[in-house]
Amino acid sequence: MPLGDPAGIGPEIVAKSWAMRTARGLPPFFAVGDAASLRKVWQGPVAPIATPQEAAATFESALPCLQVSEVGEIVPGVPTTDGARTAFQALEVAVGLARTGSAAGIVTAPVGKEQLYGVGFTHPGQTEFVAERCGVAPHNAVMMLAGPSLKVVPITIHIPLAEVPSVLTIDLIRARAITTVKGLQRNFGIARPRIMVAGLNPHAGEGGALGREEIEIITPAIESLRAEGMDILGPLAADGLFHARARETYDAVLCMYHDQALIPLKTLHFDEGVNITLGLPIVRTSPDHGTAFGIAGKDSANPGAMMAALKMAAEAARSRLTHGI
Amino acid sequence: MPLGDPAGIGPEIVAKSWAMRTARGLPPFFAVGDAASLRKVWQGPVAPIATPQEAAATFESALPCLQVSEVGEIVPGVPTTDGARTAFQALEVAVGLARTGSAAGIVTAPVGKEQLYGVGFTHPGQTEFVAERCGVAPHNAVMMLAGPSLKVVPITIHIPLAEVPSVLTIDLIRARAITTVKGLQRNFGIARPRIMVAGLNPHAGEGGALGREEIEIITPAIESLRAEGMDILGPLAADGLFHARARETYDAVLCMYHDQALIPLKTLHFDEGVNITLGLPIVRTSPDHGTAFGIAGKDSANPGAMMAALKMAAEAARSRLTHGI
Repeated sequence: MPLGDPAGIGPEIVAKSWAMRTARGLPPFFAVGDAASLRKVWQGPVAPIATPQEAAATFESALPCLQVSEVGEIVPGVPTTDGARTAFQALEVAVGLARTGSAAGIVTAPVGKEQLYGVGFTHPGQTEFVAERCGVAPHNAVMMLAGPSLKVVPITIHIPLAEVPSVLTIDLIRARAITTVKGLQRNFGIARPRIMVAGLNPHAGEGGALGREEIEIITPAIESLRAEGMDILGPLAADGLFHARARETYDAVLCMYHDQALIPLKTLHFDEGVNITLGLPIVRTSPDHGTAFGIAGKDSANPGAMMAALKMAAEAARSRLTHGI
Repeated sequence: MPLGDPAGIGPEIVAKSWAMRTARGLPPFFAVGDAASLRKVWQGPVAPIATPQEAAATFESALPCLQVSEVGEIVPGVPTTDGARTAFQALEVAVGLARTGSAAGIVTAPVGKEQLYGVGFTHPGQTEFVAERCGVAPHNAVMMLAGPSLKVVPITIHIPLAEVPSVLTIDLIRARAITTVKGLQRNFGIARPRIMVAGLNPHAGEGGALGREEIEIITPAIESLRAEGMDILGPLAADGLFHARARETYDAVLCMYHDQALIPLKTLHFDEGVNITLGLPIVRTSPDHGTAFGIAGKDSANPGAMMAALKMAAEAARSRLTHGI
């Protein structure tokens, strides 16, 4: 796993995860980055490795680390160009190893995008980068946020709320739904995923009185997918979709915009939310949080989401092997 | 408390609440409506009363009910014009009793709006009706949704999502914030309420990259209120505002639209959400759910939110007496 920005909390949460590998039943993994960034924030054993194959033998006794370029001086909380270069290389190397099958998948630690842009990174984020390196068009790589009791897929993501209604189309909803179903089959082994679709407007538009997108866009998309045999229902009032009893009735919710998906996920699972990219030939997960430069180096970062991302990646890799899809 | 539509779950959840009055430590209350609607769905004792003053003496042994017009035949789940007339009268009478001080407040059970419109009701909902009867302009009556661990106020409510950005103004946000602070002081006895304000856009606009409403509208509103001494912070990314640790840092969140407020509230407190109207001279609460005609008469309605609304009304009435505001 690439360590992300060496001045962020990535190295710390990777090290803490390794330390809890037995207690939490984590799969074997290895770091890709500058071993010095681990040593800077952690006293535990780090084992430099030259190839992925060496990782398994050392994992029990030390955190394996495949070295890329050295950062030089590392000050936690203070991102640098050298650090961004290391993060960029680590990501590139890790994706390559997963592509060639030398790693079962990748779990990306958080990066500082501003810094990355300074060293030649040109993608909006790691997801789009990984998609391109896998030969997948960025709009076919779909972000799912997953916690222990809820999986959500936002249909639109990082756009102003005012633009959401005009971006929604029948085709977009269909494409996201199809990728979501395939993703649940491949990565989670759910043979026939049950999908719920949230409405855009309050009360899902209340029959058109509170907005017409449900009638003109969302319902036609759902009906065409149902006609093709998909187990998909909606649009339903978003505020009634996420309580405990409701969550038992589906495998994932398609949401119309960022906060509609992220509010319930983070309300329920703030410290254990995992971002898993659907639609890729490789397994890719990441903890659903940022570099947190403000708390880096203070030993206060919570490794919960990173550990959840590690477990989910392992389960997704196992599921793909088992189901052969 | 007005029983709401006699064919809805109102009578059932009022009766169930009375039955649990001791176990749940509920305050004394009396029903306003047709006693036959209670007897239709409940075998317990109902005591007809002629005046509110009789309620206290009978409350321990029977559910007091102040009769209004009789409905005639009542079929749970099948709303009628006669039922709507009774619901309308019950609401009118109950508000009047609260206005004159014969009741400490009102807790409204759910009504069927379509049916009400057929009997001369002309307000969008009970909230606006109560506001008018209290001489309060409808836009000054503010809906707060409250659960055990979260209170939210949506700044815009029943409008299409596409209209939200254009409806938001500095003045509107200021007005809602001021009413919210006063409401928390009067009804909950919080001397210096801590208010958080959610952003409209993903990541609260990310410095303008994902929308400019935070910069142009929300931040100026917050800054002007802070300059006047209010303890108010934001705009903050909405998805990070509602997890357990975040909820400890404020008394209420101002949200920009319906689902931003209702999703976290109902995710956390689906069966115990209370709607309390701020900005009124009287106490008014209601359970945060509808008539549920589909389950009426089946003894399966959950009285949790009704009981929470009763307790909250009593606490609000006590707080107003104590603080004299």
